[in-house]
Amino acid sequence: MKTVLVYSGGLDSTVLLYDLIHTEERVLALTVDYGQRHRREVEHAKRICGRLNVHHRLADLRAIRHLLAGSSQTSASVDVPEGHYTEESMKATVVPNRNMIMLAVAAGWATAEGCDRVAFAAHSGDHAIYPDCREPFVAAMGLALEMAGWHKVDVHAPYLALTKEEIVGRGVALGVPFAETWSCYKGGTRHCGKCGTCVERREAFGLYGMSDPTIYQSV
Amino acid sequence: MKTVLVYSGGLDSTVLLYDLIHTEERVLALTVDYGQRHRREVEHAKRICGRLNVHHRLADLRAIRHLLAGSSQTSASVDVPEGHYTEESMKATVVPNRNMIMLAVAAGWATAEGCDRVAFAAHSGDHAIYPDCREPFVAAMGLALEMAGWHKVDVHAPYLALTKEEIVGRGVALGVPFAETWSCYKGGTRHCGKCGTCVERREAFGLYGMSDPTIYQSV
Repeated sequence: MKTVLVYSGGLDSTVLLYDLIHTEERVLALTVDYGQRHRREVEHAKRICGRLNVHHRLADLRAIRHLLAGSSQTSASVDVPEGHYTEESMKATVVPNRNMIMLAVAAGWATAEGCDRVAFAAHSGDHAIYPDCREPFVAAMGLALEMAGWHKVDVHAPYLALTKEEIVGRGVALGVPFAETWSCYKGGTRHCGKCGTCVERREAFGLYGMSDPTIYQSV
Repeated sequence: MKTVLVYSGGLDSTVLLYDLIHTEERVLALTVDYGQRHRREVEHAKRICGRLNVHHRLADLRAIRHLLAGSSQTSASVDVPEGHYTEESMKATVVPNRNMIMLAVAAGWATAEGCDRVAFAAHSGDHAIYPDCREPFVAAMGLALEMAGWHKVDVHAPYLALTKEEIVGRGVALGVPFAETWSCYKGGTRHCGKCGTCVERREAFGLYGMSDPTIYQSV
């Protein structure tokens, strides 16, 4: 298969990237810059693709950030909540319709490049707060893409049933350089250790029983 | 209902705009600039919204034009085909996954604004060459949006079963200033009269039995 991966440079999508380069005929990686507070991830994504010799493109959507306001990730006035990712307070991090927008753009590029599918690394830990990381959304997007054109593009989300610690386990097996991935939502120069994504990242390494190579600002 | 209209400034979506301002509690209009050859339509959209006092925003997606290459509307190297809209040659005008991208961005804005639905003016004349103007696509997008979030956003495409001449008829009844709308795909300063959209526009006025107020470059 020829696959376009929606690639953030974070832990989950980096593990998926390492998975896909072993299974796919061709992998292209698309990083979406929607003016997110944690734009640092874009540089991490570029660097990792460079190392793997994966064709990487940036979808610069900063110009529509003003339409997707109200989230801590697109509005400077909304604080990034601290605590566990599954808490109600994490809803502040939701960017309206982000996954559909990213998948739609990735599918456009996939069509232009003659690819068969778009992939993203939604996993079971995301489900609690993000409906657009669940199986019904993935299935409906697959159907919408099937109906949208002559060139069929599937949606591939192989980690839907995995926990984050299982993804860490896959990453270990694949030799993923975890320290080069970026998860923190706060946009500092180090992982904060307190936001939902940092808490979840730390926890995943702990549950998997591996020492966490990430340098956090707060211990 | 509070509705975000995907609004190009063309004939069909202008008639729908005039329809919606009579039926909706609130109408917002979103024009997508994807670097299309016929960017002139953006100015027409702005002007008409200004006249109607409709809240109008631009989604500037020019930065991702390079990802959606291969269409006559996004690539300077691909000529705009001439002839009837339903001909095979018109496939050159297809921008990969354009409608899904536009609806996804509109739905993001609709969510941020607390709107109930996104509308677009797909009609039966489009169906022949654009699968993403057909009912199965609209239904699948509605389902994908339902699955994507807590805030439900519907897809409203009330002209799916109408022909273009029936849309002209609605426009006449609603007092639409047809001469201020822009359809031509060629990007000149006047409607060319030869591209698919011009041919279809002309034909629709003719079939409806109304004199066409458009000034065409070629008679």
